[in-house]
Amino acid sequence: MKILITSDNHLGYKESDPIQGEDSFTTFEEILKIADKENVDILIQGGDLFHINKPSRYTFNRAINLLKKYCLGDKEIKIETNTQLTYHDDNLNIKMPIIAIHGNHDDPCGLGSLSALDILHTSGLITYVGKCTNLDKIEIKPILLTIEETNVALYMLGYIKDVRLHRAFLEGKISYLRPDNYKEYFNILVLHQNRVKYAEKEYIPEEFIDNMFDLVIYGHEHESLTSQNIYKNFFIIQNGSTVRTSLSDSEISDKYTYIIEINKKEFKCNTIPLQTVRPLCFDNIILEDDKNIEDILTKKVNTMIKGTMPLVRLRVDLLKGIPINKYKFGIQFKDIICNFSDILKFKTKKRKEIKEENKKISEIHLKDIIYNFVSHKNLTTIPENLFLNALEEFTEKDEKKAFENLMDNMQKEYIKRIINDGFCEEIPFLKIKNQIINEKGYKEEEEIISKEINEIENEIEINNKEETIKTKKINKNEKLKDEDSFSFTEFL
Amino acid sequence: MKILITSDNHLGYKESDPIQGEDSFTTFEEILKIADKENVDILIQGGDLFHINKPSRYTFNRAINLLKKYCLGDKEIKIETNTQLTYHDDNLNIKMPIIAIHGNHDDPCGLGSLSALDILHTSGLITYVGKCTNLDKIEIKPILLTIEETNVALYMLGYIKDVRLHRAFLEGKISYLRPDNYKEYFNILVLHQNRVKYAEKEYIPEEFIDNMFDLVIYGHEHESLTSQNIYKNFFIIQNGSTVRTSLSDSEISDKYTYIIEINKKEFKCNTIPLQTVRPLCFDNIILEDDKNIEDILTKKVNTMIKGTMPLVRLRVDLLKGIPINKYKFGIQFKDIICNFSDILKFKTKKRKEIKEENKKISEIHLKDIIYNFVSHKNLTTIPENLFLNALEEFTEKDEKKAFENLMDNMQKEYIKRIINDGFCEEIPFLKIKNQIINEKGYKEEEEIISKEINEIENEIEINNKEETIKTKKINKNEKLKDEDSFSFTEFL
Repeated sequence: MKILITSDNHLGYKESDPIQGEDSFTTFEEILKIADKENVDILIQGGDLFHINKPSRYTFNRAINLLKKYCLGDKEIKIETNTQLTYHDDNLNIKMPIIAIHGNHDDPCGLGSLSALDILHTSGLITYVGKCTNLDKIEIKPILLTIEETNVALYMLGYIKDVRLHRAFLEGKISYLRPDNYKEYFNILVLHQNRVKYAEKEYIPEEFIDNMFDLVIYGHEHESLTSQNIYKNFFIIQNGSTVRTSLSDSEISDKYTYIIEINKKEFKCNTIPLQTVRPLCFDNIILEDDKNIEDILTKKVNTMIKGTMPLVRLRVDLLKGIPINKYKFGIQFKDIICNFSDILKFKTKKRKEIKEENKKISEIHLKDIIYNFVSHKNLTTIPENLFLNALEEFTEKDEKKAFENLMDNMQKEYIKRIINDGFCEEIPFLKIKNQIINEKGYKEEEEIISKEINEIENEIEINNKEETIKTKKINKNEKLKDEDSFSFTEFL
Repeated sequence: MKILITSDNHLGYKESDPIQGEDSFTTFEEILKIADKENVDILIQGGDLFHINKPSRYTFNRAINLLKKYCLGDKEIKIETNTQLTYHDDNLNIKMPIIAIHGNHDDPCGLGSLSALDILHTSGLITYVGKCTNLDKIEIKPILLTIEETNVALYMLGYIKDVRLHRAFLEGKISYLRPDNYKEYFNILVLHQNRVKYAEKEYIPEEFIDNMFDLVIYGHEHESLTSQNIYKNFFIIQNGSTVRTSLSDSEISDKYTYIIEINKKEFKCNTIPLQTVRPLCFDNIILEDDKNIEDILTKKVNTMIKGTMPLVRLRVDLLKGIPINKYKFGIQFKDIICNFSDILKFKTKKRKEIKEENKKISEIHLKDIIYNFVSHKNLTTIPENLFLNALEEFTEKDEKKAFENLMDNMQKEYIKRIINDGFCEEIPFLKIKNQIINEKGYKEEEEIISKEINEIENEIEINNKEETIKTKKINKNEKLKDEDSFSFTEFL
């Protein structure tokens, strides 16, 4: 069985850039071409197919176009499986099945908790798996693939915040729903997480992974490499990104796609260098002072350039003096270096100070302001983690209804609790109501309360419970004022 | 030949509403079911398939799901045509071809000028036509369809701002690329414009339409009706919306889908009432004063309710006294009226005054502020219409790069003009540059100018022109200050 591995294709990265706009699509097409030419049985995508959560119409269109071009066509598919895959759709003529998980860039959220991958899945071009709905019990059901005497079990898990998945592993909340004869399978785990320990508990170390696996595929990390874990006896493919999304160390090395050929329990891994990835020329230089700095750097950069319109990054450690203007410097390279206006990166004390200074006026993000604001409040009604989730969805995923949904859910939750606990003493009830009202920023408190009481009564009726809630006509003056409660209206 | 007509399905309308969220999808499915059951040869969609320009993942997913369910399957398609339609794709098993145009809600914009319909087109589920790229020469090429002895020519034009299309018609800029034997065809025009004169020049009157047509299909208008234009001798189908997107007059009447059966040059039109559209119960009442107002209105509303969870709108003309709180009033109907908190609409002097008052603090839109701001400025560099287009894209279509794109295009335009006109006297050149800089809000003026001069020189070289532009080293003090020029940085 021949499987092509790719991940972190970041379709749509810099899509409006006149030079780099096509990069992510070009290389993704190169990979699809390789898969096609090598006649692979299946393609596995390890997350971050899309660069953002809400791909533009342009990126969606390009993605669907490419997938249609390479996944559709005449070919007999020999795989037997326990799972509905794309080629099972009688109305689509699939020649190459793709199975994908989401990454951190294209993870599900919003109404219906959907990823952009869901749309490709519904359209029948990929099979999207690995969505986890309950962090307290993560059960990974394998996709079992059989061709003749070779059995492969694919365990795939989409991106989960590293710190949470780390904890879930430690607490033994992960289980693999393996078949009884799992030892007869070549077992593959695919996940999209940090493999490297960038911060305490924010990664999934290889030690966490069950040694039933023969191969572990890590998406997420942008460096492309393979290694053998000799203690656990599994092979690791860290595919890396297929478009360089930063000018940092992790993007320096060459980019690859991998084809594994599995024969019963044996396998070999072919590392295929990608030809279309824009080169990144990276170097460091130390300068004693700023004399002749422009000449020195010009010469240096000229020696670095390799390939057509590469990305170039020269880190300059300037021990004394003032950095030159990198934009002005770059103009001379505008026809030969892709990022000509951003080649140099100065590392000077002065630069750092200036940066800090600028931060005060230009780099203060809404998120920071809100975090700061919230950290001085005592959130008594909304659990902090839910609030921070909503905040992240709102700021980073452009999910405009994040707070509205949070409030709706919290309200339902409280009403449920009140009903279930028979919690109807007057004062705490009003206190919670009062808080909810403060947080919703409504003015017509009375009406909301009476509406909610109606709903509660209604639910109680439905549940055939015999409790009744007696409420007095609520007098505004009677209500408890909770001045410390966190009020949404203050900043929304 | 049997053709089903629908339009203004507004998929995704109120998608997060717990009661109405499914409405647009339910009725669209009803229509697809009718098309399927009636075994139509083709389905024509007259614009506004989607409610917004950037449908959510949820709405996209639902739309693709429905289209796959009803458009794919086994059926021999008898149509011969001059155009690539969905069923020509050998890899898709299409049983019902759909041809659609965009409306004002899902019109193309942004990178690549794409509509959400482009994605459905690329995925092979619909054929999207009627995009117009040049308003100075609108050529409509027909889709020619033939079954046995019946020939149909479909002329389809997506939404264009009414005032512009109106002008284009008046100036004779519309042409139909009809075949020589067009009289042997049953000629259909499909457009998505105002048919009714809501404002001077902001509609496309029937008189504008060539009398070669046998049938004219108007999308856009939300009322569903048909009529015969006796002067022009064509039949009109104004399909209307299939979900009520407002509680206004135009949404009161029943909703339909239409099936036309064409036999050579004869046709009949079947009007099929839609069963799933949420009822709208609409009435007016005049009250002398506010005595017993709640009782009177409660009784009135109770007599109005028809169907399950209808929309209800009662317009109350209150001659004297103060309106009651419509939210409080509505609570009693919460289990039987969909929009229970918004049933009443008071028409009183007092209400009007209050509204005006409120407007001052709550209904001032960003757009108004900017319009107001701009109207006091003299835009000398950017044509006002382009600026207003960008403004609309930015505010209403959520197109974040609208201004960036405008500025880029303007810059290119000016550079082109300077080159073509050999326009190199120093002062006007600098004046324009200075304005561009002001508008871009850049601080590093010198560098931008020198970069642009480089580009200009480069372009001149490419064009093999012999002009040269001599520029002095630009001294900041030399530059003309144009204090009146419109500065982007002031509000962006």
